[in-house]
Amino acid sequence: MTSEIQEKGKRAKAASYVLNIKTTSEKNEALTKIAEQLLIDQQAIITENAKDLAKGEEQGIPASTLDRIMLNSERITAMADAIHLLVKLDDPVGKVVEHIKKDNGLQIEKRSVPLGVIGMIYEARPNVTVDAATLALKTGNAVVLRGSSSAKFSNIALVTSIHCALAKTAVPTDAVQLIEDTSRETAKELFHLKDYLDVLIPRGGKALIDLVVNEATVPVLETGAGNCHIYVDEMADYIKTEKICLNAKTQRPSVCNAAESLLIHPAWFQTYGTQLLTALQQAGVTIIGDANVCQAFEAALPATEEDYGTEYLDLTISVKLVENVYEAIEHIHQYGTNHSEAIVTEDQVVADTFLHSVDAAAVYHNASTRFTDGFEFGYGAEIGISTQKLHARGPMGLPALTSTKYFIYGDGQIRV
Amino acid sequence: MTSEIQEKGKRAKAASYVLNIKTTSEKNEALTKIAEQLLIDQQAIITENAKDLAKGEEQGIPASTLDRIMLNSERITAMADAIHLLVKLDDPVGKVVEHIKKDNGLQIEKRSVPLGVIGMIYEARPNVTVDAATLALKTGNAVVLRGSSSAKFSNIALVTSIHCALAKTAVPTDAVQLIEDTSRETAKELFHLKDYLDVLIPRGGKALIDLVVNEATVPVLETGAGNCHIYVDEMADYIKTEKICLNAKTQRPSVCNAAESLLIHPAWFQTYGTQLLTALQQAGVTIIGDANVCQAFEAALPATEEDYGTEYLDLTISVKLVENVYEAIEHIHQYGTNHSEAIVTEDQVVADTFLHSVDAAAVYHNASTRFTDGFEFGYGAEIGISTQKLHARGPMGLPALTSTKYFIYGDGQIRV
Repeated sequence: MTSEIQEKGKRAKAASYVLNIKTTSEKNEALTKIAEQLLIDQQAIITENAKDLAKGEEQGIPASTLDRIMLNSERITAMADAIHLLVKLDDPVGKVVEHIKKDNGLQIEKRSVPLGVIGMIYEARPNVTVDAATLALKTGNAVVLRGSSSAKFSNIALVTSIHCALAKTAVPTDAVQLIEDTSRETAKELFHLKDYLDVLIPRGGKALIDLVVNEATVPVLETGAGNCHIYVDEMADYIKTEKICLNAKTQRPSVCNAAESLLIHPAWFQTYGTQLLTALQQAGVTIIGDANVCQAFEAALPATEEDYGTEYLDLTISVKLVENVYEAIEHIHQYGTNHSEAIVTEDQVVADTFLHSVDAAAVYHNASTRFTDGFEFGYGAEIGISTQKLHARGPMGLPALTSTKYFIYGDGQIRV
Repeated sequence: MTSEIQEKGKRAKAASYVLNIKTTSEKNEALTKIAEQLLIDQQAIITENAKDLAKGEEQGIPASTLDRIMLNSERITAMADAIHLLVKLDDPVGKVVEHIKKDNGLQIEKRSVPLGVIGMIYEARPNVTVDAATLALKTGNAVVLRGSSSAKFSNIALVTSIHCALAKTAVPTDAVQLIEDTSRETAKELFHLKDYLDVLIPRGGKALIDLVVNEATVPVLETGAGNCHIYVDEMADYIKTEKICLNAKTQRPSVCNAAESLLIHPAWFQTYGTQLLTALQQAGVTIIGDANVCQAFEAALPATEEDYGTEYLDLTISVKLVENVYEAIEHIHQYGTNHSEAIVTEDQVVADTFLHSVDAAAVYHNASTRFTDGFEFGYGAEIGISTQKLHARGPMGLPALTSTKYFIYGDGQIRV
């Protein structure tokens, strides 16, 4: 017997071969239709969403999670608006990225092409369903969606609406598949669906990502955790330092590009340490310091080894004195997650040492780590922020959902 | 207790941070020194190689494998020559691949950087040791080598020579690590060495590659098998067809870009089938045909379902009639390995349908599949031929061993 995953994977693969050769305008028309249909189906979607919310309340799901599941007219309109913006973005498919002409007359063109079928595994938020489906279609990819059981009714309603829209377009409805069985077993099946999936993208917390990275045999696009540091050098300007530290820690502490740890040069700390930590404390930040910091700043709590490896995702920061930029780099390599790392200094040589030596997706000189973001970089869309080194690193825009293919044009050439 | 793998992985990682910021000329000087040292150490290498050969003979290793292990003056000179050519190639590291200037004054540069540490696991041939080490160093990467037990003495001698050369240069000797324990357990340990390896590249047969792909949690650069097809369309020119089929099948049948299967349009087959198959047969090729082919060509052996999925790597080819280009594409998607696929036709529309629809690293119109090769494409070096879609697809030159990193230059900018 064929399982739901096998069956839907197979259909998505077949659809991907059709979608693969659709034009930009055919894909954009399909996206526009989806945006329109979501608004038309608004009431039905909200009704189904209410079932998820009722079930969640019954099961005692925390209010913050319920809020992430909740859909209302405003949120559905926001989804439709995001699709209209996606339509306007440049199609990354079909670009000739390399052209080689050989002496024997062979013409070799390396062109960007869709990946094929994208598997997407994610947690509570049902808007990821629409986001993932539309990013996939824009880039000519079919998609197999595997959301959370807590948003099951909402996800079915959203995909029903998407299918209804696609039925009126050149894009096959099979290009968007939703796995309705949300058991652990189907997740594991998805991890090994190599015959049909070209890539698997987990979107969610560290536990989900680690599970996928460790278990999947399908290639994974890893969007990882951010244990981001700011190194405040001996030559750091105080005003810039305070602005950057406050912004990186407090503007949105729950996200991966927020700072989690300050490394400070002892000489700078002696002059400005108390002033900086006081400013952070007044902004509501709990300071976890090493012995030197705790001695100088009474409100600091003592840091353990574990603190340096912790992504707090909250108004908490660890603070440690380091002798120089080299010790800062070593600390970052030991505890960092290769996401976003910043130095504040007016010394260009020290800055260059830091930027070139630190192994991270994004390295900053005199700016907040909070800028690591596809929209901030001007990509117009974001698949996620990659902390891996293969394929894509840092904020991933639409090109991250493409591969390349060599087209070779001959006239009977053979290899000699 | 730290294992050999842990210890050498850690050293390679530390060396990668040093190597990371070496200039092109520092890296090239190190490569030149290695080429020189291999020639100096020639006799010692050949002596150690003789031990591997003696052990292999004792163990009854086939002569063809022993030939692959064998090193002599000519082969060592060829290694040195290859290194001198590598020195001349463009350094792919440090290129600004994208430059973004934001309204707030932030300057964002996306630059190519080394991957970090490359794990290389490979079979008999000791020349892979030198090839992998020098390709890694050229691209600023450290490397952990895990060769075969059958070439252990040779590999140790080669890496000793490399270390002796590096000791005189700016590149740390720790950048090249050889795992001397060639047990299965150490291979498995390498598969999961995520703390120290940035990528794992298997080089060898299908069994090795499948093992690595299925077991490794370190990201893998997969260089896969090639079950390559040639579709001979109704409008195929006979002369071109015969030239291409003979070349793709017989010029070097043991390699991944050789053709393994012919798909032929029935009308064309009726006119030219016997002539083409006779030509192949006269070139020593065994024809395995479907019912129609067997009926028309007496010497053909009947094909089973399994034949269509077989990479013969030998002077054997399966031949099947297909109704049209769509059936050819479907067959290729069912049995192919996404490597190299060719169409022979004078009909441009049919050719375009084939080229755009077939999902493979390289698609050919009127040319032999044998061209899928980094040197043929003019890359000057080849890491392997990728059949995966993430990171690199098709022949991989030096840029496949790089990642990217965002450098962000500010003056106190914060996110609002």
